[in-house]
Amino acid sequence: MQYNYDVIVVGAGHAGCEAANAAAKMGSSVLLITMNLQTIAQMSCNPAMGGVAKGQIVREIDALGGMSGIISDKTMIQFRMLNRSKGPAMWSPRCQSDRMKFAEEWRWALERNTNVDFWQDSVQELIVQNKELKGVKTRMGMSFYAPSVVLTNGTFLNGLIHIGEKSFGGGRMAEPNAQGLTEQLVSLGFESGRMKTGTPPRVDGRSLNYEAMEEQKGDENPSSFSYLTKEPIKEQRSCWITHTNEKVHDVLRKGFEKSPMFAGRIKGLGPRYCPSVEDKINRFADKNSHQIFVEPEGWETVEIYVNGFSTSLPEEIQFEAIKLIPGFEKAKMFRPGYAIEYDYFPPTQLSPTLETKLISGLFFAGQINGTTGYEEAACQGLMAGINAHQHTHQLNPFTLSRSEAYIGVLIDDLINKGTDEPYRMFTSRAEFRTLLRQDNADERLTEKGFELGLASQERLDTYLQKKQNVENLIQELKSNKLKPTEANPWLESIGVSSIKEGAPLINFIKRSDVGFEHFYKNEMLIPILKKYSTEEIEQAEIIIKYESYIDKERKMVDKMKSMEDLQIPPQFDYDKIKTLSTESRIKLNKLRPQTIGQASRISGVSASDISILLLFMGR
Amino acid sequence: MQYNYDVIVVGAGHAGCEAANAAAKMGSSVLLITMNLQTIAQMSCNPAMGGVAKGQIVREIDALGGMSGIISDKTMIQFRMLNRSKGPAMWSPRCQSDRMKFAEEWRWALERNTNVDFWQDSVQELIVQNKELKGVKTRMGMSFYAPSVVLTNGTFLNGLIHIGEKSFGGGRMAEPNAQGLTEQLVSLGFESGRMKTGTPPRVDGRSLNYEAMEEQKGDENPSSFSYLTKEPIKEQRSCWITHTNEKVHDVLRKGFEKSPMFAGRIKGLGPRYCPSVEDKINRFADKNSHQIFVEPEGWETVEIYVNGFSTSLPEEIQFEAIKLIPGFEKAKMFRPGYAIEYDYFPPTQLSPTLETKLISGLFFAGQINGTTGYEEAACQGLMAGINAHQHTHQLNPFTLSRSEAYIGVLIDDLINKGTDEPYRMFTSRAEFRTLLRQDNADERLTEKGFELGLASQERLDTYLQKKQNVENLIQELKSNKLKPTEANPWLESIGVSSIKEGAPLINFIKRSDVGFEHFYKNEMLIPILKKYSTEEIEQAEIIIKYESYIDKERKMVDKMKSMEDLQIPPQFDYDKIKTLSTESRIKLNKLRPQTIGQASRISGVSASDISILLLFMGR
Repeated sequence: MQYNYDVIVVGAGHAGCEAANAAAKMGSSVLLITMNLQTIAQMSCNPAMGGVAKGQIVREIDALGGMSGIISDKTMIQFRMLNRSKGPAMWSPRCQSDRMKFAEEWRWALERNTNVDFWQDSVQELIVQNKELKGVKTRMGMSFYAPSVVLTNGTFLNGLIHIGEKSFGGGRMAEPNAQGLTEQLVSLGFESGRMKTGTPPRVDGRSLNYEAMEEQKGDENPSSFSYLTKEPIKEQRSCWITHTNEKVHDVLRKGFEKSPMFAGRIKGLGPRYCPSVEDKINRFADKNSHQIFVEPEGWETVEIYVNGFSTSLPEEIQFEAIKLIPGFEKAKMFRPGYAIEYDYFPPTQLSPTLETKLISGLFFAGQINGTTGYEEAACQGLMAGINAHQHTHQLNPFTLSRSEAYIGVLIDDLINKGTDEPYRMFTSRAEFRTLLRQDNADERLTEKGFELGLASQERLDTYLQKKQNVENLIQELKSNKLKPTEANPWLESIGVSSIKEGAPLINFIKRSDVGFEHFYKNEMLIPILKKYSTEEIEQAEIIIKYESYIDKERKMVDKMKSMEDLQIPPQFDYDKIKTLSTESRIKLNKLRPQTIGQASRISGVSASDISILLLFMGR
Repeated sequence: MQYNYDVIVVGAGHAGCEAANAAAKMGSSVLLITMNLQTIAQMSCNPAMGGVAKGQIVREIDALGGMSGIISDKTMIQFRMLNRSKGPAMWSPRCQSDRMKFAEEWRWALERNTNVDFWQDSVQELIVQNKELKGVKTRMGMSFYAPSVVLTNGTFLNGLIHIGEKSFGGGRMAEPNAQGLTEQLVSLGFESGRMKTGTPPRVDGRSLNYEAMEEQKGDENPSSFSYLTKEPIKEQRSCWITHTNEKVHDVLRKGFEKSPMFAGRIKGLGPRYCPSVEDKINRFADKNSHQIFVEPEGWETVEIYVNGFSTSLPEEIQFEAIKLIPGFEKAKMFRPGYAIEYDYFPPTQLSPTLETKLISGLFFAGQINGTTGYEEAACQGLMAGINAHQHTHQLNPFTLSRSEAYIGVLIDDLINKGTDEPYRMFTSRAEFRTLLRQDNADERLTEKGFELGLASQERLDTYLQKKQNVENLIQELKSNKLKPTEANPWLESIGVSSIKEGAPLINFIKRSDVGFEHFYKNEMLIPILKKYSTEEIEQAEIIIKYESYIDKERKMVDKMKSMEDLQIPPQFDYDKIKTLSTESRIKLNKLRPQTIGQASRISGVSASDISILLLFMGR
């Protein structure tokens, strides 16, 4: 039995799996400890990956050499590129997943990683000496040792499940919770809090009437998450859309007095942007209908996830209300929805590597940091896994800036602003979202991933080839021209204005009313396009059409950067600057930002406070 | 939400799944309640189905219309017909299973059964009125109603897990136990006891050295469990055999003082024929080696089940000892072995339908009755499911006699003799094992299954066709002759004695030194065999070769039957028969057998007691 490892990962959800995989791929010997080897990489909530901003994160994870994109591609039952009608910064890949196959593929991927060992058990205690992490102790009484430990406990720390007036301990429904760790961390000086999340009832798809709902099919030409995936999904399953109504709301209101949330039995705050249905009715009293998104759970199951109907009202209220939703008249339930409260640790206690400031070698990732969402968890796991490896091997920390990745935005937000409610990613959180697109995550991150020893040679080559091809295509567009006699019949046929002088092909793409889809209608142009993949053509079009926006953001980044990276001396004495606002002084003292950029994003630290700081630092 | 059902099944292991499937196929509306919908049909112990006597049970389940055979066929990774070198009564099909796929296929089979509804929850209380079962109450506070309820709680009732000196509550590792039911049943007058079982450590297959072990491949021409399976498995995975040695035993002995079993912390008795490794060392102190059977857990996993190394010694002792087994020098563990104690209810409290004598409509199946083994559990579930359906619809109870099926032997043993230790099936438990063969389970049971509405028309047709073909083949063998000139060159070529007079083909098969495999070496005979399947040819050979044995057992059955079925009046007053032995009188009073046959098998009731009884009943 091996007791000493380079990295120990506690928990095997999205965060834990990415952490273990990353550190192991980079060469660390990794022990992955999970309560139950049968439930690795469970999708505890809805069976889907990606979505707005989240899809971009999955692409970033993939570009760095993580697994979430590859696993999603292998196990999807539907794919859609959301927001295709908007600008490319908003394009967001999303898939429906086969819940069981997703978990199986993750487990199999980890098992094939020869640096990953497994141990089925529950960690109850950290072994810490002089504020340095040394290892963990388990419920079975085992001790395992490593210089770096990543905690990814999800909703398991003192998890408490609520349904109506009933509540009982559990990490998820039918799984025990984890005890002991929170108490120890608090005794070590950590601040902890409670958060809450919830899940809707699961119903029997055989009992639904889909004719009363609106079908939502997958894309006709589906794409994929991973830059390595060559064959997109062929067959797809549909989702369905229906809506609540006043009758549903009236029934749900009957249960409000027994709601654990409204009655104050739940102390933790829930995810604002993924609220329970009772929360929606309560907060948006004027809305008489809310959308319900009906998601199948996989290829070979009749189980259905009722997205939008998360609730912790008493189960009899849930049953009565759900049957009033069009299409659900005869719905049978497999289990009711419930809420779960769990411990988290305000992430302002972390440095940018996700290492805790208090204990060297201890990393936190996922819901333990107050986030919500598989993608948010997975990317933290990836970053914590990378940095755990770097820490153990005394290599440089690896971080991403806000202009490099949504991952950078997420971690920067967490460690500087903290969060009182489950933190979810949105495109609006990014200042430079024209740069942080789903199509260019490889350009932003794959070379970094390769340098770390995480992204494979194949991945790097794939990226470099794509980059070269996009450049070639743009070059061809610049060097090939169309005369008016060649262009105008075609332009007329597609119903746009004609040209008077000959023009290089690139000029056509720059026009808002012409795109590559029109090039396919001109026989002279098809031979050029035939040489490139859909992805390459799409990216070239984005680069050409949005050149000015992209340039503008790049310049802004450069300007910010000069200030962003300005180091604040670690022992900087904020108390001596009397002109700083009191709030600002308290927060700066508490959070101790490493750079002016970080300082500027602390809530309560104003622009004038930053100017004062710069003044005192001699700028 | 539906609250009223024809049949409720509690628990979704092998017993619960067969029970739910059977009652639903017969037309009952069934609610299957399980703590966790993700863990339906878990193979809690080794990833294998069948084996000696157990394989026959799977064939019987299949012949009646149950699912265990079909699921096993779909998910096997290796098949072997054990004991092929012995008489056909001993032939026993066995497969290695893909643990995850087995569970998935079962779930998918149940989901496609439109009469089965699912509810994820834990049953804490039965609703009983006037000794009649009315329904169940769950942990979430739900009430569901049905005239028949089947309890299949496995090891979950007050389950207590032991490893060395540590113990904690759980139904399986990492799953909560079930509380409340035992206490209520005892308060209703049931007698309960404790049993114990155990499981070995799981190891990482990548860390084993297979060159130090003996390979055990699957059969070259694999067969299958289900009479409906047409395509046997094509690719197979091997198992491996190694052995413990004195060094291993010495290390294990070091842990004996911390053994929960030897120290008396475990009160329940374990399975005698599937003992822990410490038990083997202790009981067979003269043996310096025990076999270890290394079983892969599926197609896409490196996890390995170490069959023969079940243990609840402290985990550090387990690690130290396992590494001394040849091939395990560098073994890495996924989790240690453990023992689990759980409540059972002595099965003498049941009638032959598996309905409890105390509460009408309440059925028990599986480990709750003190049995061990997936097959033993599954067949009880099947019988309880059938009888639950019959009870709800006021139809005749369905039972099988000891001469009809191993299932009959098992239930008869349980309800009459009871069991103090986990009951496992053996061929030696059956008086008529030449009749209870794996090849003729369809002949014995498929028509019964069809009459019940459980076996499908396809299954009946398949059986009738096979029966007709076997008869045709035997007829052909009788009506076709070989002259000495035709036969002798062939007989010489296969090295057996020649004939002097012409003989029908059947005479050759009757010889112990000739079989159908030799027929393939005679070109005149091949055209006959070509018309029949391997299974048909095998069965014809068994019928011909073992005719006299089969006849003898049939006659014995008839003789026994006249006595067997003799009813004992329900109010029969044993106390007035002073000549009965005291032990006999007490047991007969307590168990109240329905027939003389049952009475004769009660341990402590002697042949002379039976004679006295017959005398008093006027025989």
